[in-house]
Amino acid sequence: GWGQFRYHAFSRGVTTWTDNAGITRPVRNRDAFDIERARLMFSGHFLDRKLGYLVLLDGDTDGGHTVDFFYYYFRWQVCDSFELQLGKRKVPGTRQWLMSSRRTRLVDRPMSLDFFRPNLTVGLFGVGKLGETGHYEAMVGNGYFSSNAPNSSSDNELTFAFTNYFDPWGAFGEQIADIDYSEQPLIRVGHSFVYSPQQGVVDGVPIDEADFIRLSDGTRLTETGALGPGVTINSFNVYLYGVDLAWKYRGWSVDAEVFLRWIQQIEADGPISREQLFQHGFYVEAGKFLIPGVLDINARYSQVSGDFGTGREYGAGMNWYPLKTSRMKISIDAVKLENSPLQNTASDIMVGDTGTLIRSQFQAEF
Amino acid sequence: GWGQFRYHAFSRGVTTWTDNAGITRPVRNRDAFDIERARLMFSGHFLDRKLGYLVLLDGDTDGGHTVDFFYYYFRWQVCDSFELQLGKRKVPGTRQWLMSSRRTRLVDRPMSLDFFRPNLTVGLFGVGKLGETGHYEAMVGNGYFSSNAPNSSSDNELTFAFTNYFDPWGAFGEQIADIDYSEQPLIRVGHSFVYSPQQGVVDGVPIDEADFIRLSDGTRLTETGALGPGVTINSFNVYLYGVDLAWKYRGWSVDAEVFLRWIQQIEADGPISREQLFQHGFYVEAGKFLIPGVLDINARYSQVSGDFGTGREYGAGMNWYPLKTSRMKISIDAVKLENSPLQNTASDIMVGDTGTLIRSQFQAEF
Amino acid sequence: GWGQFRYHAFSRGVTTWTDNAGITRPVRNRDAFDIERARLMFSGHFLDRKLGYLVLLDGDTDGGHTVDFFYYYFRWQVCDSFELQLGKRKVPGTRQWLMSSRRTRLVDRPMSLDFFRPNLTVGLFGVGKLGETGHYEAMVGNGYFSSNAPNSSSDNELTFAFTNYFDPWGAFGEQIADIDYSEQPLIRVGHSFVYSPQQGVVDGVPIDEADFIRLSDGTRLTETGALGPGVTINSFNVYLYGVDLAWKYRGWSVDAEVFLRWIQQIEADGPISREQLFQHGFYVEAGKFLIPGVLDINARYSQVSGDFGTGREYGAGMNWYPLKTSRMKISIDAVKLENSPLQNTASDIMVGDTGTLIRSQFQAEF
Repeated sequence: GWGQFRYHAFSRGVTTWTDNAGITRPVRNRDAFDIERARLMFSGHFLDRKLGYLVLLDGDTDGGHTVDFFYYYFRWQVCDSFELQLGKRKVPGTRQWLMSSRRTRLVDRPMSLDFFRPNLTVGLFGVGKLGETGHYEAMVGNGYFSSNAPNSSSDNELTFAFTNYFDPWGAFGEQIADIDYSEQPLIRVGHSFVYSPQQGVVDGVPIDEADFIRLSDGTRLTETGALGPGVTINSFNVYLYGVDLAWKYRGWSVDAEVFLRWIQQIEADGPISREQLFQHGFYVEAGKFLIPGVLDINARYSQVSGDFGTGREYGAGMNWYPLKTSRMKISIDAVKLENSPLQNTASDIMVGDTGTLIRSQFQAEF
Repeated sequence: GWGQFRYHAFSRGVTTWTDNAGITRPVRNRDAFDIERARLMFSGHFLDRKLGYLVLLDGDTDGGHTVDFFYYYFRWQVCDSFELQLGKRKVPGTRQWLMSSRRTRLVDRPMSLDFFRPNLTVGLFGVGKLGETGHYEAMVGNGYFSSNAPNSSSDNELTFAFTNYFDPWGAFGEQIADIDYSEQPLIRVGHSFVYSPQQGVVDGVPIDEADFIRLSDGTRLTETGALGPGVTINSFNVYLYGVDLAWKYRGWSVDAEVFLRWIQQIEADGPISREQLFQHGFYVEAGKFLIPGVLDINARYSQVSGDFGTGREYGAGMNWYPLKTSRMKISIDAVKLENSPLQNTASDIMVGDTGTLIRSQFQAEF
Repeated sequence: GWGQFRYHAFSRGVTTWTDNAGITRPVRNRDAFDIERARLMFSGHFLDRKLGYLVLLDGDTDGGHTVDFFYYYFRWQVCDSFELQLGKRKVPGTRQWLMSSRRTRLVDRPMSLDFFRPNLTVGLFGVGKLGETGHYEAMVGNGYFSSNAPNSSSDNELTFAFTNYFDPWGAFGEQIADIDYSEQPLIRVGHSFVYSPQQGVVDGVPIDEADFIRLSDGTRLTETGALGPGVTINSFNVYLYGVDLAWKYRGWSVDAEVFLRWIQQIEADGPISREQLFQHGFYVEAGKFLIPGVLDINARYSQVSGDFGTGREYGAGMNWYPLKTSRMKISIDAVKLENSPLQNTASDIMVGDTGTLIRSQFQAEF
């Protein structure tokens, strides 16, 4: 298993934020200890060496320390270059979402990534190799962000996702920071696509699943009034496309990803100001090991843009690996937020945040 | 541990159903991937070979992937023919409820069984042998259907249950389908009894425990208006009796169970149309292995009857055991439902359902 | 792991209780089986012998059998006499709260202890030795009683706690009852201190964390009307001080703890009857082994006093250790309650209780 022990403090630069439906909510100063992503893993083979299972228990402060099955799936190694997975895991869309949160440069993932990325779902997943260093993952599953939703709050539409990368100069490895001090420059280029139709009401029954999409100012799309006074969105289709690039060499490293998201065929119970939305954003991160394998510094800029405003994140931080292994690290970062459209308790970034967030963290694998 | 990965689709034949209190609710088309009954088991002995414990963690899509203790009890092997169990497990009432859901002929249990059967509870359980092939289980526990209810929503009355079977022609085994291709005909005959007094209000405090009982048209008995306009049921006593029979021989097999349920001493806060109810039903199932130990086909009919209507289930399906072991199977079935009085997310049968349900499932033990 | 299987029955001596805001609530008779504190522990070292982790899964009937992470922390053995712990565990305040609930004399902890004690929280903990038999624990953490609260319902103030004891006549051990039949008299003297500022509203956002404090008649301090008609408390500071003493010799044993709690700087949204509160209480327990190591009898008196009334608990019970080890015991007790100000589902004592509580329990470690 593994876990993160964190102390975070947020100092607000504004006292309220107002969403596109005209509702004003307070922005609060915050500070607390929290445990993020405490995980216990059980995995192995059964009946045959080609058949396996994985069960990952998860709990953290944000979820009231309640334990859930975060990942649980069966896997079948169909052939050397293809594995089929049946169960619950991450939707394969966007590069850094598929990277373990243990590998982030700063204490948590970029704001723009968490705004655009999908979540977890139950479905069929294929994971395969293309040539020597190519990798792809494909999925048909319940939803874009259905995660822990029971079937009673999920719609009837399936979600499709695909991601793919190549490492043309040799195997890039799991780390975006160059902890292994690569003697040769390494790059990874990839892209991801997710298509997800969403229904807010199915056969007269209201469905929660569509609640996750937000306008670029942070307003929930399904909130009454989001796109027109007193009007509620019933259904829409989401298309996400992302392109990513990572490079590392002799302790230096850079990675970036661009996101494009189209929300189309928006239907509502009254007149709305637009029937489709286009949202875009990106993050770019860079770092350098000051003491190879032991201490690095990192910086990040991330941005979310769209018709209703722009949110920005400026971050810098450092990681110390006291035992010269990535299995244990101590991190600190500072992030300046402007008009956060993201609500994410894991990264301690809340919707409406303008201000400064400081996070320090101890992380270990056991 | 073990788990079930399923895809189900329900195509409705009606758009609404109206309960006995006159409330009309939508019936929705549904389709989704879901994980059912993912289980992690921890068990062993302590201090003495006669003392043991069992802890079974459970989570699934229906429960939002939250983990709970499904079974957890201490056991004491008092003598060769009797074991005492203290903790939480299944109430010993009805035969197929006590059979693991891994052993069902179709993808899930019969509709009528799930309508009549009890659930899990906390209590004292005795499990013993009678002669060579006789088996009985007896219980005194908190409730008929209290399952995960905290004590604050359980009443003060205890529930009693007893079940018993004999295998007069030799040990029948755990499987109702004849996966082992029995050379001699085998039968199992048994019966079960549960008595459970229920209070909807205790000393002025409303109690949720009694919410599970439904009329034969699916109306919750404790719903206001169920048995009289504006009137709510306060208390009643439940008596359940079931008789079961199973037979298998050379790949062929049949099993059936009849249920009789009396709901008596019904007390309410106003005039009600009847002070006692009698509900009855049954299921009958049969199957044949087309390829011994590898592939079988099965059919089922189940029915729930009572004063307020009759619900029916017609099902057929097949199971493929690709590794010639019951530890892994791939199943598909089709079920035609008429006026389902059952609400059960595990079998994907909802109250009011009239229509067709298709389920496909991968199941494995690891 | 370990667990407790219990049957309890409460026979009320009053039918209602009225709180200080004038609200009258029913007191109900109760009886049920319940599982308390079923625990599964995973612990070990990682990377280095000085680094460890501990994860304790917990579930019980009171929590609907849902599983949570009860304890989970990383630990670093800084030197022989000091260990640092990062994560979630018990706040180190009051002696008997820090003792495992497996070691209680009666079936559960004293009423006054549960009224005054803190709970669990996430924070930084130091555990160290002072001389040969001295022990101390210090903490800075999220809250006094935040336990499973997510950060969204915890305030920005940190809580500080410290506890310390000495065993001047030699190592006292983990047991307060003299199960080891000490040939020499042994004593333990100690004290504890907790300081916790509480905010009911932060930057305009209501916070649940402060809900745990009750007046000595059981009224929640943050309930509207608790200290003045229509007025709600916004913030206050809590100071808890406790002094404890334990003695055991040749099967006899006595232990006691005195609690003093000051609630100061009370601020509200209107006029209140007092701006500070002083609450005090104690428990005293004694026991004797009738059959050394096998059977003991015990008695307890505990009391909570303050400006709004006094609650009392008179208890007596016995423990049987059939295998002559503390790892398994069977217990029974009877407790007379008068005006309980405590709401605690673990000990089956509810706020407002006046009456008699009988508990019997089987407990084992596995």
